[in-house]
Amino acid sequence: MKLFLVLLLLVLLTAFGTTQKKKRVIFFGDSITQAGANAGGFIGKIDSMLKKNNNDNYELSGAGISGNKVYDLYLRMEDDVLNKNPDIVVIYIGVNDVWHKRTSGTGTDADKFEKFYYAILKKLADKNIKAIVCTPAVIGEKNDYTNEQDGEINRYSNIIRGIAVKNNLPLIDLRKIFLAYDVKNNPENKDRGILTKDGVHLNETGNQLVAEEMMRMILK
Amino acid sequence: MKLFLVLLLLVLLTAFGTTQKKKRVIFFGDSITQAGANAGGFIGKIDSMLKKNNNDNYELSGAGISGNKVYDLYLRMEDDVLNKNPDIVVIYIGVNDVWHKRTSGTGTDADKFEKFYYAILKKLADKNIKAIVCTPAVIGEKNDYTNEQDGEINRYSNIIRGIAVKNNLPLIDLRKIFLAYDVKNNPENKDRGILTKDGVHLNETGNQLVAEEMMRMILK
Amino acid sequence: MKLFLVLLLLVLLTAFGTTQKKKRVIFFGDSITQAGANAGGFIGKIDSMLKKNNNDNYELSGAGISGNKVYDLYLRMEDDVLNKNPDIVVIYIGVNDVWHKRTSGTGTDADKFEKFYYAILKKLADKNIKAIVCTPAVIGEKNDYTNEQDGEINRYSNIIRGIAVKNNLPLIDLRKIFLAYDVKNNPENKDRGILTKDGVHLNETGNQLVAEEMMRMILK
Amino acid sequence: MKLFLVLLLLVLLTAFGTTQKKKRVIFFGDSITQAGANAGGFIGKIDSMLKKNNNDNYELSGAGISGNKVYDLYLRMEDDVLNKNPDIVVIYIGVNDVWHKRTSGTGTDADKFEKFYYAILKKLADKNIKAIVCTPAVIGEKNDYTNEQDGEINRYSNIIRGIAVKNNLPLIDLRKIFLAYDVKNNPENKDRGILTKDGVHLNETGNQLVAEEMMRMILK
Repeated sequence: MKLFLVLLLLVLLTAFGTTQKKKRVIFFGDSITQAGANAGGFIGKIDSMLKKNNNDNYELSGAGISGNKVYDLYLRMEDDVLNKNPDIVVIYIGVNDVWHKRTSGTGTDADKFEKFYYAILKKLADKNIKAIVCTPAVIGEKNDYTNEQDGEINRYSNIIRGIAVKNNLPLIDLRKIFLAYDVKNNPENKDRGILTKDGVHLNETGNQLVAEEMMRMILK
Repeated sequence: MKLFLVLLLLVLLTAFGTTQKKKRVIFFGDSITQAGANAGGFIGKIDSMLKKNNNDNYELSGAGISGNKVYDLYLRMEDDVLNKNPDIVVIYIGVNDVWHKRTSGTGTDADKFEKFYYAILKKLADKNIKAIVCTPAVIGEKNDYTNEQDGEINRYSNIIRGIAVKNNLPLIDLRKIFLAYDVKNNPENKDRGILTKDGVHLNETGNQLVAEEMMRMILK
Repeated sequence: MKLFLVLLLLVLLTAFGTTQKKKRVIFFGDSITQAGANAGGFIGKIDSMLKKNNNDNYELSGAGISGNKVYDLYLRMEDDVLNKNPDIVVIYIGVNDVWHKRTSGTGTDADKFEKFYYAILKKLADKNIKAIVCTPAVIGEKNDYTNEQDGEINRYSNIIRGIAVKNNLPLIDLRKIFLAYDVKNNPENKDRGILTKDGVHLNETGNQLVAEEMMRMILK
Repeated sequence: MKLFLVLLLLVLLTAFGTTQKKKRVIFFGDSITQAGANAGGFIGKIDSMLKKNNNDNYELSGAGISGNKVYDLYLRMEDDVLNKNPDIVVIYIGVNDVWHKRTSGTGTDADKFEKFYYAILKKLADKNIKAIVCTPAVIGEKNDYTNEQDGEINRYSNIIRGIAVKNNLPLIDLRKIFLAYDVKNNPENKDRGILTKDGVHLNETGNQLVAEEMMRMILK
């Protein structure tokens, strides 16, 4: 009888172990996501928060590359995302598509931004991978709409919002969240230093804010 | 003798009347001001409104040239403004300083925009000519801050607002006025057709609005 | 016996006829290639020249879309090229990758241009499709290196020349051919009207020149 | 009597010697000229070479400011040039007018470049100050016309050459001189390090070359 119980336990444990596969989450993006995988980055923060809550159901990994635009993600989807069989992909792209227009004349046309975004989503949908989309947060943290490319980053955020609605996708509206935060917490109207180090890349507070928003959406 | 005095008085009054020189107002700017001098433009509209009110004290003339930026105004000040001995100069510049950054890579750096603006004001002040300054209205009429260069036009407007405050100059804040108008009257969030023909150049309604704002400030 | 030989001949001819499949050639590019498929375009001209020479071995078709850059080709390869099982693909891309840097801030970084070019070539090689590559011809026809983007179009042409050498691919060096032609035939150093209508898109002479160069390389 | 005449002659010669005012030369330009006034810069090198030749007839001074374009020179002419009563002004401008098109969208339109250049020359001519003009040397030292802005720097150099011819002005064709030097001395086709430190600003060799060319023209 004792032996029977031990064996039963073993069977149950095995069954539990095999059925409860961890959900694989890939964060797919540019230098912000690349830094998110570094010490103090938002990916590590999400991981820590999950562990604190004894949630061991997720396996997180970063797939961010500096300078990436939407079509760069498309080019490396097979290698960096699909071949790794993720359950969830958090797409956080768009800053360089706007920013590089001014810095190097190599941004992305709005219509092509949307086209490539859809092409990425289609490849994920074809493999039944859940996509979570994010709007690009900020290029400059001034909160009175005087950052040089505010108009464009608003416009590209609107494109992503539209995509989310049409495809019924979970949206993390970082643009909206960052603007609201900066209105409250940037009384001197500085262009950096609130949620970013340089107007674009996240500081400690920014990484924490993004981590919280992303975790909430991943757990939904 | 009494008659003589009465006649003398009449003669003096008449003389005074004729010598009461009209105030010369020059509108100094770019293609928007150039078009403002055409049929249906805001300069003609101001003139008509003044006449309707039997106000014959102003002589208006346009000095707008298509494609002008702030340094172009500076270059042609002597010929087109100072040599004409105006009493008032309405400066309406800034759209091309921003716009040409995107269209041809030849906009104006913000710090140099301010520097040349001050250089113009100094030349006017040296001749005791009253300056009235305007913020650039719009490059695109969408009212949710998604026009491509909204961030920049807001920034350059802020520069002009700062100049007006520091120099105690009358300011016609067309940027603010147009935004408020577009929020009320552009429910479909179109990028043109409310106050402009093409997102930049004034239509009938835009010319009327500008005319009213400018007249009000000139009469102050 | 005679009849037998005649019949045998007929059978062989028929067999020869059916097995000798026409070679399918796809011209893959931007608006220049799109126009190349129109009346008077270089694709039709190649077709006519082949027919004049009683060469019935090729089936030509255009796959050019206005505004395309290298990554746009990559995005639509399956639909517009691979699914049509071509034997030869003539890749003529690069003008917009350079040109749009200036016109709209949305050109292609040199390193990414090369990366996507290789990605296209890899997909063709994987299916044993022969690739013929072309350098971008001109953005402006002045022959003294004073066209605004001469430096860049030379640079991107060098990238394609390097790719051709490294991959042992046939190269149609339109950049070199056009420059040589313009040096000889553009004594007034005009920016358009020699081989192009507008500095970029081919006129009759340009289409003829491109047709001859491409036919020569296809027949090799 | 004879003695008297000899003495008189001596006195007159002495007087003539002291009244023979040194020729004042101002170098008017951007950061390249600004650095030219630093230790090891071309202005000091000209000064040293003159002294070595016992030529004490020139007084040299620099008026270069980093980031300056042609209209910045125009704005500060009175303060930095005219008020100092120079005999000769060496104008070395144009690099930023081209370069900033790409780096910040704030270059100078070709037609306005020419217009402001003429405005500067007019002010000098009005005061009988001799102008020596220079073409902009390089933005990138590759010698096969693949530097990004080669087309433009050639074009703006042509504008200055045209101005020199039309106004019969001495021209130091640095563009031509640098290209010839780089063809001979840049066998690896590097983009910097031959005559410049960074593709734009002069190294030791570049300063020496510019010094020699300028001295030759000043002494003419």
